[in-house]
Amino acid sequence: MTNKSKLSFKDFKEGQIFSFGKIKISYSDIIDYAQKFDPQFFHLDKNLAKESIFGELVASGWHTASVSMRLFVEACGNIDGGMIGKEVKSIKWPRPVYPDDVLSIKCRVKESKICKSKPELALVKMTNTTYNQKGEIVMTADIVMFISSKYSYF
Amino acid sequence: MTNKSKLSFKDFKEGQIFSFGKIKISYSDIIDYAQKFDPQFFHLDKNLAKESIFGELVASGWHTASVSMRLFVEACGNIDGGMIGKEVKSIKWPRPVYPDDVLSIKCRVKESKICKSKPELALVKMTNTTYNQKGEIVMTADIVMFISSKYSYF
Repeated sequence: MTNKSKLSFKDFKEGQIFSFGKIKISYSDIIDYAQKFDPQFFHLDKNLAKESIFGELVASGWHTASVSMRLFVEACGNIDGGMIGKEVKSIKWPRPVYPDDVLSIKCRVKESKICKSKPELALVKMTNTTYNQKGEIVMTADIVMFISSKYSYF
Repeated sequence: MTNKSKLSFKDFKEGQIFSFGKIKISYSDIIDYAQKFDPQFFHLDKNLAKESIFGELVASGWHTASVSMRLFVEACGNIDGGMIGKEVKSIKWPRPVYPDDVLSIKCRVKESKICKSKPELALVKMTNTTYNQKGEIVMTADIVMFISSKYSYF
């Protein structure tokens, strides 16, 4: 499934995989995000970060989550009405993201059904896995979202 | 518990509440975040957003999560070694964040224990609730993190 094509509810079938990459996270990207949203020393200062549990400067996990959202939108967000986040069942960060890491995503549809109470919407459950340039997993997220169901009837 | 004081593991007792506010999210903050991380029309364009499920421009849920992380750091991040995110068990966004909403946070310790395998670290589970200026909940997050346990011995 290419990320270029316009998608509809019927494309979000169980087992379907969408993917997108690559986005590079630079040193200054990490600092910029951390200054705004997660000003802890191991995200802000490469010298102080040497004394941290990470041993070097790393991106905030919420920065990784934000970049993963961008990758997710690029992978399968081209759908009328957009993707409406309902909740996240789980986020895990098995390893950090370092300056100049290049991230990509695989998004797998776990379940997809039309809402009984609001049949114009479909509830879609996905597992999104974010990888670094070595193919190592840096984040997994179990996402629940709404998308429009109306195009499923054509 | 004020957010000004230096904290240690012994402050993260079950039932302890840390709080912080306020951070205002402006219209341009919403656009800036969305351009980088969640470029969907209802986060980017107030005219197009009228046609969305929200009926108006709203912040990305991941922007709300990012601002909540900032509030969390301000509330209880003043601890040697910092707060190391392990995983998130749940995120819910019961209502959107709109331009000029003013957010605050309450962070409640659910569980806190020294790691058996790494006694220099403590595992802390918290439920963080983010509110708007009306006292309405805009996000809840069940967080699992590591903090240093070493200061608990003094």
